[in-house]
Amino acid sequence: MADRESKYTAVAGGQRLYAVPPASFVRLQSDGPNPMARIVQKFGGTSVADVDRIKNVALRVKREVDAGHEVAVVVSAMAGTTNQLVDWSRAISRLHDAREYDAVVASGEQVTAGLLAMALQDLGVNARSWLGWQIPLRTDGVHGKARIEGIDTGLMLERIASGQVPVIAGFQGLGPDNRITTLGRGGSDTSAVALAAALKADRCDIFTDVDGVYTTDPRIVAKARKLDKITYEEMLEMASQGAKVLQTRSVEMAMKHGVRVQVLSSFVDLPGTLVVDEEEIVEQEIVSGIAYSRDEAKITLVRVADRPGVAAAIFGPLADASVNVDMIVQNVSEDGKTTDLTFTVTKADLDRAVKVLEDNRGQLGYEDLKSDADVVKISVIGVGMRSHAGVAQKMFKALAEKGINIMVISTSEIKVSVLVAEDYTELALRSLHSAYGLDAA
Amino acid sequence: MADRESKYTAVAGGQRLYAVPPASFVRLQSDGPNPMARIVQKFGGTSVADVDRIKNVALRVKREVDAGHEVAVVVSAMAGTTNQLVDWSRAISRLHDAREYDAVVASGEQVTAGLLAMALQDLGVNARSWLGWQIPLRTDGVHGKARIEGIDTGLMLERIASGQVPVIAGFQGLGPDNRITTLGRGGSDTSAVALAAALKADRCDIFTDVDGVYTTDPRIVAKARKLDKITYEEMLEMASQGAKVLQTRSVEMAMKHGVRVQVLSSFVDLPGTLVVDEEEIVEQEIVSGIAYSRDEAKITLVRVADRPGVAAAIFGPLADASVNVDMIVQNVSEDGKTTDLTFTVTKADLDRAVKVLEDNRGQLGYEDLKSDADVVKISVIGVGMRSHAGVAQKMFKALAEKGINIMVISTSEIKVSVLVAEDYTELALRSLHSAYGLDAA
Repeated sequence: MADRESKYTAVAGGQRLYAVPPASFVRLQSDGPNPMARIVQKFGGTSVADVDRIKNVALRVKREVDAGHEVAVVVSAMAGTTNQLVDWSRAISRLHDAREYDAVVASGEQVTAGLLAMALQDLGVNARSWLGWQIPLRTDGVHGKARIEGIDTGLMLERIASGQVPVIAGFQGLGPDNRITTLGRGGSDTSAVALAAALKADRCDIFTDVDGVYTTDPRIVAKARKLDKITYEEMLEMASQGAKVLQTRSVEMAMKHGVRVQVLSSFVDLPGTLVVDEEEIVEQEIVSGIAYSRDEAKITLVRVADRPGVAAAIFGPLADASVNVDMIVQNVSEDGKTTDLTFTVTKADLDRAVKVLEDNRGQLGYEDLKSDADVVKISVIGVGMRSHAGVAQKMFKALAEKGINIMVISTSEIKVSVLVAEDYTELALRSLHSAYGLDAA
Repeated sequence: MADRESKYTAVAGGQRLYAVPPASFVRLQSDGPNPMARIVQKFGGTSVADVDRIKNVALRVKREVDAGHEVAVVVSAMAGTTNQLVDWSRAISRLHDAREYDAVVASGEQVTAGLLAMALQDLGVNARSWLGWQIPLRTDGVHGKARIEGIDTGLMLERIASGQVPVIAGFQGLGPDNRITTLGRGGSDTSAVALAAALKADRCDIFTDVDGVYTTDPRIVAKARKLDKITYEEMLEMASQGAKVLQTRSVEMAMKHGVRVQVLSSFVDLPGTLVVDEEEIVEQEIVSGIAYSRDEAKITLVRVADRPGVAAAIFGPLADASVNVDMIVQNVSEDGKTTDLTFTVTKADLDRAVKVLEDNRGQLGYEDLKSDADVVKISVIGVGMRSHAGVAQKMFKALAEKGINIMVISTSEIKVSVLVAEDYTELALRSLHSAYGLDAA
């Protein structure tokens, strides 16, 4: 455990804010009777969409309190509220000030926190709402997508020790300018994980409208299975590759601070999926899940000069225009002078990317520019790949058997991604799900 | 001016927070060209009811800025928002915690402040929103109806001096427990006047959905006239006696700190009514206005014992039951042993008052209890009464000529109120309006 303890993050002033759970809590992982635990529960927008659902959430919180656990709750805005506030901001001014935007949109979580605290009190649970500035949960000054810098947990821990349940407005913090900051869309997940780390919680339960993490999208693959456990690395790849269950940043933070995260539904009463360290998973599948993203577009530059510096000449202007490039493939030159270069961007960036490349055509000297937005990226993910060969080969074979042409391939240590025509999305997912033995019995 | 200067209110730490405008600003009262002034503008809920109205408010603010004035703005929640938040709170818990209620309802003003700051920026006006805790505007800890204790204006004055327009969320402050407090319904008027006092503003413009203070309700008396000026004392009586233009507490605060208040409409472009010190009004009418309140009910205790201590025995239990008694009349005893006692309470308190009196009947020993909710209180108001006799007599004569029976009379230094049957409301108002020469030409 010495190694885990060393993950403490020191901050200015010597205060230790984020930490892995102390060793004394680790026995919770056993299947024995549950000792007292400290749990952070986070409820998303659909879970608190109206007064009745807020009351239902209060019952869920009360159950953990009654079981003798210490509970802190993080809430999102009531479903629809944030969109309304964003719409108003846009209607007022297309180029609205990010500081004012933050003050406006953070009000949604404020309302939910107050209402849930009331609902808990109504059930006889000692509860109190906390806004970002009251904790304070300190962030940097990047309004609209601030990063958490530290959480003062002193007073909150005192209150928790005295039996009070803090109900924390998610998504918001306090910037260095004494103004409200927000953490960006889905930021309440990040609030919850950061708080769980700071409070040294045994678990962070993320309640949402799905009941866990699946091997793939169950709306497409009927035989998709809910996973009991998944590693941080896999969850991170799943989130980055299109699965929308958890926000990428919150998974990164959980991994960094060793926070055990459970994804579960607030509408059914079943265990969800635990996102944990690799060590916690005894029998690791080679492939844990298959993600897909339709938010891709492909650009090919035909017969671009094959000489040093060309890649920089192409991708420099795109980076300047804030276009993120994902997969890149450069063909072997046939004539020794020119080559074809293919890469992917998000669908939203496609028009901008094409314009930048056309504006620079004279300098880049390509013969033709082809773009295709009807593509999908399919990714096979699993930490077991590290120790097992043949995972990529199995993928290529399964797709070839269905006549699916692979346009681009990219790999990482625990992931193989391919780009194929969008029409094949469902066929490809089902074929791969079977090929890797993931189908439910 | 030495006398006015002495009205400075000292607070802990020796900071002077509330003050009458310094002498250098007083010349503004002249009709000459306007020098630079410092103005607090307050916009109510209907003035900021939607995005278009908020943009319209931004234009109004900009006009004052363009004229070279220093402007601070106070806003209410968008019309309907506060009711929605109150409804949610009630649906969650009938006995909701006042601290959580404050956190929930204060979010309405937060949204408007942010949106108006955006709208001003969109017009090129340097603006920044301020929430109660950011100023901070400090209050006592009475959640739901907190009293303002002090306003830290240091940073705000720096920003104003640098050309920035602060947009302040009204109705809210920061309590001693580091939690959001609210000032009670209509509290944004109080926020605005307190801020005008603290900032030593030359004027506090209260924008609402009426264009000023009228001699009486223009919906009833077609010949009602808008007043150019009215004294604090008269405005206070008008507000207490049923006119709903300004909240009583805000008028008290304006009077206490010598803040010149203008009531005007955000929908028309006309000067409103100035609420000012008596000295500012050169030609004072004897009667300035006629108010009425239908929110009255009359109770008569028939043949109650006429001996010392009876009044205390009656009104003590009512006070204990939080029933406010307004007008009281005790008839001269006919038999030397018993008397009739008549008094008024609000309609909302009537049932409770009757129950208290019936529960105590044995002790009070009255013969009969009569109650009547179909009554109206009509009040003639004017500081000129102090130096003119015959005001009350003119009222009684005018009502008698129309055959209107007076049930109860009460008077103060600048007011005569009578209770009459509710059916006579309109007739009484029109008759008195003419009798005192208030009719528009």
